[in-house]
Amino acid sequence: MIGRLNHVAIAVPDLKAAAARYAGGLGADVGAPIELPEHGVRVIFVTLPNTKIELMEPLGPGSPIAGFLEKSPAGGMHHVCYEVEDILAARDRLVATGARVLGDGTPKTGAHGTPVLFLHPKDFDGCLIEIEQV
Amino acid sequence: MIGRLNHVAIAVPDLKAAAARYAGGLGADVGAPIELPEHGVRVIFVTLPNTKIELMEPLGPGSPIAGFLEKSPAGGMHHVCYEVEDILAARDRLVATGARVLGDGTPKTGAHGTPVLFLHPKDFDGCLIEIEQV
Repeated sequence: MIGRLNHVAIAVPDLKAAAARYAGGLGADVGAPIELPEHGVRVIFVTLPNTKIELMEPLGPGSPIAGFLEKSPAGGMHHVCYEVEDILAARDRLVATGARVLGDGTPKTGAHGTPVLFLHPKDFDGCLIEIEQV
Repeated sequence: MIGRLNHVAIAVPDLKAAAARYAGGLGADVGAPIELPEHGVRVIFVTLPNTKIELMEPLGPGSPIAGFLEKSPAGGMHHVCYEVEDILAARDRLVATGARVLGDGTPKTGAHGTPVLFLHPKDFDGCLIEIEQV
Protein backbone atom coordinates (compact mmCIF):
# COMPACT_ATOMS: atom_id res chain seq x y z
CA MET A 1 0.00 0.00 0.00
CA ILE A 2 2.48 2.68 1.03
CA GLY A 3 4.53 4.03 -1.85
CA ARG A 4 7.53 6.34 -1.85
CA LEU A 5 9.05 7.88 1.24
CA ASN A 6 8.04 11.48 0.55
CA HIS A 7 10.18 13.05 3.27
CA VAL A 8 11.81 12.71 6.66
CA ALA A 9 11.02 15.65 8.96
CA ILE A 10 13.54 16.90 11.50
CA ALA A 11 12.56 19.43 14.18
CA VAL A 12 15.33 21.98 14.70
CA PRO A 13 15.73 24.84 17.17
CA ASP A 14 17.35 27.17 14.62
CA LEU A 15 16.35 26.69 10.98
CA LYS A 16 19.00 28.98 9.50
CA ALA A 17 21.82 27.29 11.39
CA ALA A 18 20.51 23.83 10.47
CA ALA A 19 20.25 24.74 6.78
CA ALA A 20 23.81 26.06 6.83
CA ARG A 21 25.08 22.72 8.14
CA TYR A 22 23.22 20.78 5.43
CA ALA A 23 24.50 23.09 2.70
CA GLY A 24 28.00 23.30 4.16
CA GLY A 25 29.29 20.11 5.78
CA LEU A 26 26.86 17.79 3.98
CA GLY A 27 26.96 19.74 0.69
CA ALA A 28 23.25 19.20 0.07
CA ASP A 29 20.77 21.10 -2.10
CA VAL A 30 19.02 23.35 0.43
CA GLY A 31 15.94 25.42 -0.47
CA ALA A 32 14.62 28.73 0.82
CA PRO A 33 12.61 29.04 4.06
CA ILE A 34 8.85 28.60 3.63
CA GLU A 35 6.40 29.81 6.28
CA LEU A 36 3.42 27.55 6.87
CA PRO A 37 1.42 29.51 9.45
CA GLU A 38 -1.54 27.13 9.23
CA HIS A 39 0.82 24.33 10.33
CA GLY A 40 2.73 26.42 12.87
CA VAL A 41 6.11 25.76 11.27
CA ARG A 42 8.73 27.40 9.08
CA VAL A 43 10.41 24.79 6.89
CA ILE A 44 13.35 24.33 4.56
CA PHE A 45 13.43 21.36 2.21
CA VAL A 46 16.72 19.59 1.53
CA THR A 47 16.39 17.93 -1.87
CA LEU A 48 18.16 14.58 -2.26
CA PRO A 49 18.19 12.57 -5.50
CA ASN A 50 15.47 10.20 -4.23
CA THR A 51 13.56 12.02 -1.48
CA LYS A 52 13.50 15.14 0.72
CA ILE A 53 14.48 16.12 4.23
CA GLU A 54 12.16 18.68 5.82
CA LEU A 55 13.88 20.85 8.42
CA MET A 56 11.29 22.63 10.53
CA GLU A 57 11.28 25.17 13.34
CA PRO A 58 8.27 26.45 15.33
CA LEU A 59 6.33 29.39 13.87
CA GLY A 60 3.99 31.38 16.06
CA PRO A 61 2.45 30.46 19.40
CA GLY A 62 1.05 26.96 19.85
CA SER A 63 3.29 25.40 17.19
CA PRO A 64 2.71 21.63 17.07
CA ILE A 65 6.47 21.06 17.34
CA ALA A 66 6.98 23.34 20.37
CA GLY A 67 6.35 20.47 22.78
CA PHE A 68 8.79 18.22 20.91
CA LEU A 69 11.53 20.86 21.17
CA GLU A 70 10.77 21.40 24.86
CA LYS A 71 11.50 17.71 25.47
CA SER A 72 14.43 17.67 22.99
CA PRO A 73 15.85 21.21 22.87
CA ALA A 74 18.63 20.19 20.47
CA GLY A 75 16.04 18.94 17.96
CA GLY A 76 15.49 15.47 16.57
CA MET A 77 13.85 13.26 13.98
CA HIS A 78 10.14 14.12 14.10
CA HIS A 79 8.26 12.04 11.52
CA VAL A 80 8.43 10.17 8.22
CA CYS A 81 5.90 10.68 5.43
CA TYR A 82 4.80 7.89 3.09
CA GLU A 83 2.86 8.46 -0.11
CA VAL A 84 -0.42 6.65 -0.70
CA GLU A 85 -2.70 6.65 -3.74
CA ASP A 86 -6.00 6.80 -1.87
CA ILE A 87 -5.86 8.24 1.63
CA LEU A 88 -9.34 7.14 2.66
CA ALA A 89 -8.68 3.55 1.58
CA ALA A 90 -5.33 3.70 3.38
CA ARG A 91 -6.98 5.02 6.55
CA ASP A 92 -9.64 2.32 6.48
CA ARG A 93 -7.05 -0.43 6.00
CA LEU A 94 -4.93 0.92 8.85
CA VAL A 95 -7.88 1.27 11.22
CA ALA A 96 -9.05 -2.25 10.33
CA THR A 97 -5.66 -3.60 11.47
CA GLY A 98 -5.87 -1.73 14.78
CA ALA A 99 -3.76 1.36 14.01
CA ARG A 100 -4.98 4.67 15.39
CA VAL A 101 -5.28 7.78 13.24
CA LEU A 102 -4.65 11.09 15.03
CA GLY A 103 -7.44 13.66 15.18
CA ASP A 104 -10.94 12.79 14.00
CA GLY A 105 -9.79 10.69 11.05
CA THR A 106 -10.61 13.34 8.46
CA PRO A 107 -7.61 14.14 6.22
CA LYS A 108 -6.19 17.64 6.53
CA THR A 109 -4.42 19.63 3.83
CA GLY A 110 -0.68 19.12 4.26
CA ALA A 111 2.33 21.28 3.48
CA HIS A 112 2.17 20.29 -0.20
CA GLY A 113 -1.55 21.09 -0.56
CA THR A 114 -2.49 17.40 -0.59
CA PRO A 115 -4.58 15.39 1.91
CA VAL A 116 -2.60 14.02 4.87
CA LEU A 117 -3.20 12.02 8.04
CA PHE A 118 -0.94 11.16 10.96
CA LEU A 119 -0.80 7.74 12.64
CA HIS A 120 -0.31 7.24 16.36
CA PRO A 121 3.40 6.65 17.10
CA LYS A 122 2.49 4.10 19.78
CA ASP A 123 1.23 1.82 17.01
CA PHE A 124 4.49 2.10 15.02
CA ASP A 125 7.33 1.63 17.49
CA GLY A 126 7.51 5.26 18.59
CA CYS A 127 7.70 6.52 15.01
CA LEU A 128 5.24 9.25 13.99
CA ILE A 129 4.02 8.42 10.47
CA GLU A 130 2.34 10.85 8.08
CA ILE A 131 0.55 9.46 5.06
CA GLU A 132 0.02 11.78 2.12
CA GLN A 133 -2.19 11.25 -0.91
CA VAL A 134 -0.25 12.05 -4.08
CA MET B 1 28.05 15.97 -1.53
CA ILE B 2 25.50 13.67 0.06
CA GLY B 3 23.56 11.62 -2.44
CA ARG B 4 20.55 9.36 -1.97
CA LEU B 5 18.90 8.66 1.34
CA ASN B 6 19.93 5.02 1.65
CA HIS B 7 17.66 4.20 4.60
CA VAL B 8 15.89 5.38 7.71
CA ALA B 9 16.57 3.15 10.71
CA ILE B 10 13.96 2.58 13.39
CA ALA B 11 14.82 0.84 16.67
CA VAL B 12 12.00 -1.50 17.71
CA PRO B 13 11.50 -3.63 20.83
CA ASP B 14 9.96 -6.56 18.90
CA LEU B 15 11.12 -7.02 15.31
CA LYS B 16 8.52 -9.63 14.38
CA ALA B 17 5.64 -7.51 15.65
CA ALA B 18 7.00 -4.41 13.92
CA ALA B 19 7.41 -6.23 10.60
CA ALA B 20 3.82 -7.52 10.86
CA ARG B 21 2.53 -3.95 11.20
CA TYR B 22 4.50 -2.78 8.15
CA ALA B 23 3.32 -5.73 6.08
CA GLY B 24 -0.23 -5.54 7.41
CA GLY B 25 -1.57 -2.07 8.06
CA LEU B 26 0.94 -0.30 5.83
CA GLY B 27 0.99 -3.02 3.17
CA ALA B 28 4.71 -2.65 2.58
CA ASP B 29 7.26 -5.04 1.07
CA VAL B 30 8.89 -6.55 4.16
CA GLY B 31 11.98 -8.75 3.96
CA ALA B 32 13.23 -11.62 6.12
CA PRO B 33 15.12 -11.06 9.39
CA ILE B 34 18.89 -10.73 9.01
CA GLU B 35 21.23 -11.22 11.97
CA LEU B 36 24.20 -8.85 12.09
CA PRO B 37 26.08 -10.08 15.17
CA GLU B 38 29.06 -7.80 14.46
CA HIS B 39 26.67 -4.82 14.70
CA GLY B 40 24.65 -6.20 17.61
CA VAL B 41 21.34 -5.99 15.76
CA ARG B 42 18.80 -8.16 13.99
CA VAL B 43 17.22 -6.22 11.11
CA ILE B 44 14.38 -6.40 8.64
CA PHE B 45 14.41 -4.14 5.58
CA VAL B 46 11.17 -2.62 4.34
CA THR B 47 11.64 -1.89 0.64
CA LEU B 48 9.91 1.24 -0.67
CA PRO B 49 10.01 2.33 -4.33
CA ASN B 50 12.68 4.98 -3.60
CA THR B 51 14.48 3.93 -0.40
CA LYS B 52 14.44 1.48 2.53
CA ILE B 53 13.30 1.44 6.13
CA GLU B 54 15.55 -0.60 8.42
CA LEU B 55 13.71 -2.02 11.42
CA MET B 56 16.21 -3.20 14.04
CA GLU B 57 16.11 -4.92 17.40
CA PRO B 58 19.01 -5.62 19.76
CA LEU B 59 20.99 -8.82 19.20
CA GLY B 60 23.24 -10.17 21.93
CA PRO B 61 24.65 -8.41 24.98
CA GLY B 62 26.02 -4.89 24.58
CA SER B 63 23.93 -4.09 21.51
CA PRO B 64 24.53 -0.48 20.44
CA ILE B 65 20.76 0.12 20.40
CA ALA B 66 20.11 -1.31 23.88
CA GLY B 67 20.64 2.11 25.49
CA PHE B 68 18.31 3.76 23.01
CA LEU B 69 15.54 1.27 23.83
CA GLU B 70 16.14 1.70 27.56
CA LYS B 71 15.39 5.41 27.18
CA SER B 72 12.59 4.81 24.64
CA PRO B 73 11.17 1.35 25.38
CA ALA B 74 8.50 1.70 22.69
CA GLY B 75 11.19 2.28 20.06
CA GLY B 76 11.80 5.27 17.83
CA MET B 77 13.56 6.75 14.83
CA HIS B 78 17.26 5.97 15.32
CA HIS B 79 19.25 7.32 12.37
CA VAL B 80 19.23 8.26 8.69
CA CYS B 81 21.86 7.06 6.22
CA TYR B 82 23.07 9.14 3.29
CA GLU B 83 25.13 7.78 0.44
CA VAL B 84 28.44 9.40 -0.47
CA GLU B 85 30.84 8.63 -3.31
CA ASP B 86 34.07 8.98 -1.34
CA ILE B 87 33.78 8.49 2.40
CA LEU B 88 37.22 9.86 3.26
CA ALA B 89 36.64 13.04 1.26
CA ALA B 90 33.22 13.34 2.90
CA ARG B 91 34.72 12.90 6.36
CA ASP B 92 37.39 15.50 5.72
CA ARG B 93 34.85 18.02 4.43
CA LEU B 94 32.61 17.45 7.45
CA VAL B 95 35.44 17.74 9.94
CA ALA B 96 36.67 20.92 8.21
CA THR B 97 33.24 22.48 8.83
CA GLY B 98 33.31 21.55 12.52
CA ALA B 99 31.21 18.34 12.49
CA ARG B 100 32.36 15.51 14.72
CA VAL B 101 32.72 11.95 13.47
CA LEU B 102 32.02 9.21 16.02
CA GLY B 103 34.78 6.77 16.93
CA ASP B 104 38.33 7.35 15.72
CA GLY B 105 37.32 8.59 12.28
CA THR B 106 38.21 5.36 10.51
CA PRO B 107 35.31 4.00 8.44
CA LYS B 108 33.86 0.68 9.59
CA THR B 109 32.19 -1.93 7.43
CA GLY B 110 28.43 -1.35 7.56
CA ALA B 111 25.46 -3.67 7.25
CA HIS B 112 25.77 -3.69 3.45
CA GLY B 113 29.50 -4.51 3.44
CA THR B 114 30.47 -0.95 2.50
CA PRO B 115 32.46 1.66 4.49
CA VAL B 116 30.37 3.73 6.90
CA LEU B 117 30.84 6.49 9.46
CA PHE B 118 28.47 8.06 11.97
CA LEU B 119 28.28 11.80 12.69
CA HIS B 120 27.65 13.25 16.14
CA PRO B 121 23.91 13.98 16.56
CA LYS B 122 24.73 17.15 18.51
CA ASP B 123 26.12 18.64 15.31
CA PHE B 124 22.94 17.84 13.33
CA ASP B 125 20.01 18.93 15.48
CA GLY B 126 19.75 15.71 17.46
CA CYS B 127 19.70 13.55 14.33
CA LEU B 128 22.18 10.67 14.14
CA ILE B 129 23.55 10.56 10.59
CA GLU B 130 25.30 7.60 8.98
CA ILE B 131 27.22 8.18 5.76
CA GLU B 132 27.87 5.18 3.55
CA GLN B 133 30.19 4.92 0.57
CA VAL B 134 28.36 3.30 -2.34
